[in-house]
Amino acid sequence: MNKLSFQNALFNTYAIAASIKAVMMSWLTVARMMQVNGGFRSPEDIKKTILNPNPNAEQLAPNEYVDRIRRIQLNDLENLPFFLAAGFLFILTEPSISLAQWVLYGYVISRMLHFAAYFTARTHDTRATLWTVGSLILIFMSCWTLFVAFNR
Amino acid sequence: MNKLSFQNALFNTYAIAASIKAVMMSWLTVARMMQVNGGFRSPEDIKKTILNPNPNAEQLAPNEYVDRIRRIQLNDLENLPFFLAAGFLFILTEPSISLAQWVLYGYVISRMLHFAAYFTARTHDTRATLWTVGSLILIFMSCWTLFVAFNR
Amino acid sequence: MNKLSFQNALFNTYAIAASIKAVMMSWLTVARMMQVNGGFRSPEDIKKTILNPNPNAEQLAPNEYVDRIRRIQLNDLENLPFFLAAGFLFILTEPSISLAQWVLYGYVISRMLHFAAYFTARTHDTRATLWTVGSLILIFMSCWTLFVAFNR
Repeated sequence: MNKLSFQNALFNTYAIAASIKAVMMSWLTVARMMQVNGGFRSPEDIKKTILNPNPNAEQLAPNEYVDRIRRIQLNDLENLPFFLAAGFLFILTEPSISLAQWVLYGYVISRMLHFAAYFTARTHDTRATLWTVGSLILIFMSCWTLFVAFNR
Repeated sequence: MNKLSFQNALFNTYAIAASIKAVMMSWLTVARMMQVNGGFRSPEDIKKTILNPNPNAEQLAPNEYVDRIRRIQLNDLENLPFFLAAGFLFILTEPSISLAQWVLYGYVISRMLHFAAYFTARTHDTRATLWTVGSLILIFMSCWTLFVAFNR
Repeated sequence: MNKLSFQNALFNTYAIAASIKAVMMSWLTVARMMQVNGGFRSPEDIKKTILNPNPNAEQLAPNEYVDRIRRIQLNDLENLPFFLAAGFLFILTEPSISLAQWVLYGYVISRMLHFAAYFTARTHDTRATLWTVGSLILIFMSCWTLFVAFNR
């Protein structure tokens, strides 16, 4: 069976895990910028336009409400691209389907909980714990792949 | 035919779309840093060297001319890695070649126009519209992939 | 032979190169934040918790010791995701195994040296030279892929 076919349960698991998160984050930033009508970053953003009919200089000031989402998104950027690559290599090593599901869906769930904790400003301890789960899964998948690659 | 062969028109389309952008951005930052001889970020960057024979503390100050490129690049980072993964999964679902070309090349063109608008400091409205086109393409590809994966 | 099999020396080379770096960077940031007990970024990070029994407002101030790692990591983010995609497409063009090893392992080594130079605060010239090596490898792989894709 083709390794990259959606008939392949392993590949299917990866495709689902990889498609679920990420894109929505940017829209959250957009939503908050529109809500507070600020948190912009470029000088030209305070030109008068249809979407910004009453510009003022304060719209360029840092805005914690918007910046929180930016920090969450940066944390995602430090993690998701490596998950996309590591997860892909991991399923190509042909682990058991149940292991792949635990690992890949486990990662997605840990990141969703991390998002929820960051979004609602839980303590650093909570956030750090959830981040650690995702990070350990990433390390596990990478070490597994290296082990297979060196022992082929 | 092999799904990952360059003889496969779908894979070929992806390979072209994926290879075109990205790398050049960093060099633009380099070019601007050399032009203004500043916009550096680390304390050691104002040590006297062959490339920086007359260092001064102001070289570490934020520089809008350089920072604009950094913001463009960060916006790219929030988008391109997800495009690389989502586009790859999308072509593996075997859509029609014409749909794949519209979607993948459409994304690349929307990002190039977004770059042009940001680079020349067009209004936030223009930039936001172009960003939205790319973002909707990403969401479309991810939803398509999820639909195929759940209905295999 | 399957292009994505670990029996395939080309794919194996990619899998090793792709799995080696990246994940450890985040832990370095964590290690330094724990060492200096600061360099935090969110208001809630100075709540009293088990891991932070004596919080104070200064923990939110920028901390060069922690920020250096953040800058290194951002530089990685501007490079590694594109390497993961470009390297994957590059090995699928079926170059010779020795070329693939020079290019892929060369990239990994250039990034490790770049890390070492940034970490120990070497001059900007040293860091820029090492960054340039990695960047040229990325451009080489992307141009190679485009050449193959347009001439299939």
